[in-house]
Amino acid sequence: MTPAARRPGVSYGTRRLVGELHERALRAALTSLPSQEPRKYLYDLLPEYPTRAGKGLRPVLCMATCAAYGGSYSDAVQFAAALELLHNAFLVHDDIQDGSSVRRGSAALHVKHGLPLALNAGDALAAQATAVFLRAVRPLRSNVANALLEGWERMVAQTIEGQALDLGWQRDNRADVSTSDYLAMCARKTAWYTTIQPLAIGAVVGSGDVGREAETFRFGWYLGLLFQVANDLDGIGAAGGKDEIEEGKRTLLVVHLLATLTGDDRDEAVRILGLERGARGPGEVARVLELMEQAGSVRHAQAAVRELAAAARAEADQVFRAFPPSEARELLLSISTYVLERHGLLDVETPEPRQAAS
Amino acid sequence: MTPAARRPGVSYGTRRLVGELHERALRAALTSLPSQEPRKYLYDLLPEYPTRAGKGLRPVLCMATCAAYGGSYSDAVQFAAALELLHNAFLVHDDIQDGSSVRRGSAALHVKHGLPLALNAGDALAAQATAVFLRAVRPLRSNVANALLEGWERMVAQTIEGQALDLGWQRDNRADVSTSDYLAMCARKTAWYTTIQPLAIGAVVGSGDVGREAETFRFGWYLGLLFQVANDLDGIGAAGGKDEIEEGKRTLLVVHLLATLTGDDRDEAVRILGLERGARGPGEVARVLELMEQAGSVRHAQAAVRELAAAARAEADQVFRAFPPSEARELLLSISTYVLERHGLLDVETPEPRQAAS
Repeated sequence: MTPAARRPGVSYGTRRLVGELHERALRAALTSLPSQEPRKYLYDLLPEYPTRAGKGLRPVLCMATCAAYGGSYSDAVQFAAALELLHNAFLVHDDIQDGSSVRRGSAALHVKHGLPLALNAGDALAAQATAVFLRAVRPLRSNVANALLEGWERMVAQTIEGQALDLGWQRDNRADVSTSDYLAMCARKTAWYTTIQPLAIGAVVGSGDVGREAETFRFGWYLGLLFQVANDLDGIGAAGGKDEIEEGKRTLLVVHLLATLTGDDRDEAVRILGLERGARGPGEVARVLELMEQAGSVRHAQAAVRELAAAARAEADQVFRAFPPSEARELLLSISTYVLERHGLLDVETPEPRQAAS
Repeated sequence: MTPAARRPGVSYGTRRLVGELHERALRAALTSLPSQEPRKYLYDLLPEYPTRAGKGLRPVLCMATCAAYGGSYSDAVQFAAALELLHNAFLVHDDIQDGSSVRRGSAALHVKHGLPLALNAGDALAAQATAVFLRAVRPLRSNVANALLEGWERMVAQTIEGQALDLGWQRDNRADVSTSDYLAMCARKTAWYTTIQPLAIGAVVGSGDVGREAETFRFGWYLGLLFQVANDLDGIGAAGGKDEIEEGKRTLLVVHLLATLTGDDRDEAVRILGLERGARGPGEVARVLELMEQAGSVRHAQAAVRELAAAARAEADQVFRAFPPSEARELLLSISTYVLERHGLLDVETPEPRQAAS
């Protein structure tokens, strides 16, 4: 784990394993979806998002952790499928809530089928996720099953609570959100169902021991925040960064910007960010990017990525160091590097101020 | 059960019991809702619809059936609370899908708080409904618990499928929907979670016998359709009927209208019903009402109400005749009359053509 070994990113073996596990979970998720009437208005819509290429982080973490904890990948595949379905349910409703027109390179579901049917398809994906989860839990010992169920419910509640904060702050154009408020919100909105609970499920299912549920919590926390801030940085740089600002999203960059600016600059940024979606012209977007450059918001987010990646790696070492070597353990030890790599942020690991990631 | 005894509606005792059971289930539902942060953006929104006066049919049917089958009202109260929460989750998403501005006399949730937070609150209510249901199921014997769980999942799937058909037919302005297509759609969209499954849950929980799950199915089917068609007739008459047509909703009246009209009249009705919401002026709404009068659509729906009420009553007799007399049994035997009464349709029980219910 020397920096020199890390720089080129994760090993071929880990990259292959990520792809394999994602593929298996996705297949299980798609197989679980009913293929029956009403097709045109419902069941044809459900596989649309899952089959558009996603990152698959949730199922991969769940299955790899299960294997690292002594189980098999198969033991966790239905849980991984449930997580993937739930993720896609959130995406469908998210896109409606954000008024996004594109998801993974194609038209958002509500753009393609109309809002009413898309909202309903999101409800169906969420219901199917829970149904798959409950079926997976059923054969397990009752204390394990109950712990997993309670964890699932907690995860769903945390996600919805985090989403409420995110949407509410945006609706009210809140300019008083601190970086730590923001990260706490992201831990709920993103980390809980993306990393924290997938790891916890893997640990419990793999070990069969509910007492190990919390072991991976800190790792999941940092890894999930890393994932979110890496997303926040997506497209920021020479050519990018416009989409997020056009959409009026709160990101770590926006939060830092508003916390850093003063006087007229701050008023101007608040005014632009508070405009209705679609009312921010290219000049206004460029002005926010300029203010971000001035305020050092990109460098701030890059520094956060560095710290979160280091913390996640340290926590992974802490949890998995003593485990017998395996490809699953290797994957978990290098997953934070994998996230950086996916987001073109590998160079950010070593402080290089003013050097925006490409 | 002579017509003379039925005409004045249900007994005071039954009306009181309906109120009591609804109240108990509502209290359990509200108590289950978290009262914590984030309040303003989430948890303050959840009790809004439940506390606006509703009919409470679902919890009442569930608890009364449980008692009639040998259990206590308390045995079913958490199941009834889960049903009530799920119903309110559906209402929140429904109102967004239909673009409704008012629900139970106040602003719809998305009008009051904006679409993103309302959609999220609907997700929270659905998640809470499932959580309450799972908690209620947990102490039961595993075969009973599993049957109830599968029934819940089937109910949710049926409701979402029915909703997909309803929304899809409206989106595509389908003019080829037959009365029997329509009633089959309503059985899924409305009857399954309003009557069929509440009765089935009550029967299984009250008896402790999963073999009795299907006994009430036909009763639930007819009662649920009665409930839907009675809703379709709401406000139709001298002063009413405009709202549904303005919203472009498919109702039994609309389905009958399109199946009956021919030539230019039909083309005109199809054109008016296919307009964007908000594009139907008072003249166009009045024209549809006139065509409905011409086509006999109101009388047709009233005849359907008569048939469905008679069938529901016959099925209730069939199921509960042999049960020992009790206030719960009395309620179930007269609940179809209660539905008619609530909708001002008691007079419709005896054929009186051209006499629209007030």
